Amino acid sequence: MVQSAQNYPKGYRLIFIDACLRKPTPYAPVWLMRQAGRYLSQYRETRAKAADFIDFCRRPDLAAEATLQPIDILGVDAAILFSDILVVPLEMGMEVEFIKDRGPVLPCPVRTANDVEQLSSNAPDNLGYVYEAVRLIRSKLAQDKALIGFAGSPWTLATYMVEGQGSKNYAVIKQMAYANPALLHALLAKIAACVSAYLIGQIRAGANAVQLFDSWGGALEQSAFMEFSWHYLLVIASEIKREFPTIPIILFSKGAGGYLESIGGEFDVFGVDWNTPLARAKAALFDRYALQGNMEPMRLYSQEATRQGVEDIFKVIGKENGFIFNLGHGMQPDFSLENTKYLVDLVHTISAR
Amino acid sequence: MVQSAQNYPKGYRLIFIDACLRKPTPYAPVWLMRQAGRYLSQYRETRAKAADFIDFCRRPDLAAEATLQPIDILGVDAAILFSDILVVPLEMGMEVEFIKDRGPVLPCPVRTANDVEQLSSNAPDNLGYVYEAVRLIRSKLAQDKALIGFAGSPWTLATYMVEGQGSKNYAVIKQMAYANPALLHALLAKIAACVSAYLIGQIRAGANAVQLFDSWGGALEQSAFMEFSWHYLLVIASEIKREFPTIPIILFSKGAGGYLESIGGEFDVFGVDWNTPLARAKAALFDRYALQGNMEPMRLYSQEATRQGVEDIFKVIGKENGFIFNLGHGMQPDFSLENTKYLVDLVHTISAR
Repeated sequence: MVQSAQNYPKGYRLIFIDACLRKPTPYAPVWLMRQAGRYLSQYRETRAKAADFIDFCRRPDLAAEATLQPIDILGVDAAILFSDILVVPLEMGMEVEFIKDRGPVLPCPVRTANDVEQLSSNAPDNLGYVYEAVRLIRSKLAQDKALIGFAGSPWTLATYMVEGQGSKNYAVIKQMAYANPALLHALLAKIAACVSAYLIGQIRAGANAVQLFDSWGGALEQSAFMEFSWHYLLVIASEIKREFPTIPIILFSKGAGGYLESIGGEFDVFGVDWNTPLARAKAALFDRYALQGNMEPMRLYSQEATRQGVEDIFKVIGKENGFIFNLGHGMQPDFSLENTKYLVDLVHTISAR
Repeated sequence: MVQSAQNYPKGYRLIFIDACLRKPTPYAPVWLMRQAGRYLSQYRETRAKAADFIDFCRRPDLAAEATLQPIDILGVDAAILFSDILVVPLEMGMEVEFIKDRGPVLPCPVRTANDVEQLSSNAPDNLGYVYEAVRLIRSKLAQDKALIGFAGSPWTLATYMVEGQGSKNYAVIKQMAYANPALLHALLAKIAACVSAYLIGQIRAGANAVQLFDSWGGALEQSAFMEFSWHYLLVIASEIKREFPTIPIILFSKGAGGYLESIGGEFDVFGVDWNTPLARAKAALFDRYALQGNMEPMRLYSQEATRQGVEDIFKVIGKENGFIFNLGHGMQPDFSLENTKYLVDLVHTISAR
């Protein structure tokens, strides 16, 4: 076993950040998307203290609790702010309901120019409770652990805002994209401005890096992906870089594995989903970007499959700098804690230099 | 405008088949996945004559009616048998319910070795009503139009049979894949044997080509895709080729665009989904396979976007042999007939040699 990150040799503070910036690290840092989640009994206890899911997101004390749990329990190298991407549309003035077993519902979706007009630009100011949570977490988090802030991508937020709920085929927003692209661009630009300011607010409050989650990027064909999704990720990244040139920015677009040849721009880490062969991502991007990913999460149902998944990843990456281990998508509520701890320890062991 | 396929020059029978076999054709043939569907008022009238959706699939007269409608209305170059992929699990003895606005439900899903054991191997014999429909369609279809038979891929059928319904994350079947792969292989092998015999039955009845729909292939990471999905497509293809070496076989795996470098085997046409950049598919496969695809269906919401989509595709393909125009996924119920006709005419015009 490698030494625990708590006893990490001096001079190697925030190895997660070092990896983002492609500097040498003694092992590959690891964190897991949705590591603060229902698979942890402690999370379920914290969740039970809130009146509802939105209350949970709005209470800095509870958000901090949930954020810190996986650090103590799993020994991962970075904490990611507990929140939800839909706090942005919420604070832009939209009604957002979280309905059990159905997912989020926005009962008054955005469909017209007037609907876009009505959206508040004050969301970044209304999101003070998130900055407060970031400050609280950063004050409690071990000095050698990174805190990652995050937001949803404009395209992904727009899918919820236009469809009014999770969608199987995105027919409503795609109709807008193909039949009325100017309207969709107006919406995306307004969201992008809010998200930029929101992430800058998180960084000011103490976040050491930020990740943009483009969960539905892969819902778009290549040309539309570049126009309606990737473009706005780069707009946000460059806004952040202007103010904080050394804060790492991670872009994660689920389903964009076919479009790697089009990927470029000013950011630091490309988040690889499990659908994208890591060797392909390495060939296309590793000379310019750090990579983060990409074990198929469902391998966590089996220790043997987990071991194979980790080994396969390091067969591709070797001991090169600039790699952060993660899942290729989020943790599932029914994953076992035992297998998850096994995964984190295994990554540290296999990748030790 | 090119001459209509009805007046097609002698010596060019079944240009769809010629394109599958990469022979010269006077224009690129076109058909549309789910071209027999709810966007046609005639389809809705035919559907209304059946007691329920399963009755619709089981009545050769109604299946023939639905199959032939888009030929007359759109002027596409091939008819595809009207049926549903779930007739296979149905005739393997599973309960299958089609519930409006919810999709198919299989209330007693396959979870154990005993469940697999219980599945009937007689499905190919029980599916006589489909062969009857094929015979009827082929007898009524114009001599210069091809009839495509089809089936779901073993992996895609297994997802329904194991999950019991459409799934967002495939957690149940993936748990089986990673924690109990032998059980899943037993199920897939049994389905593959049924599907092979079923497609051979369709060909004997008169189908001129067959397509395997692997709608959920992209739910698997690359190694699992090769093991649990692609492998069985090739097993079926080689069974068919042994008996009918000149019948074209089309393989369509939705979401496998990241895995093109692994694609090979004994089949004729690779069906490209809209997620896969056509230029990538061309570079990886066009020297060995005909290609079919891949316009983003949602472009049909706009004639301008449709025109752009068609032009972009022929910019990549040029006037090369071995290309069949199709959508990258199925028709939507709310697409306009006017735009759909516009699409078919445009393909014939733009691709004319």
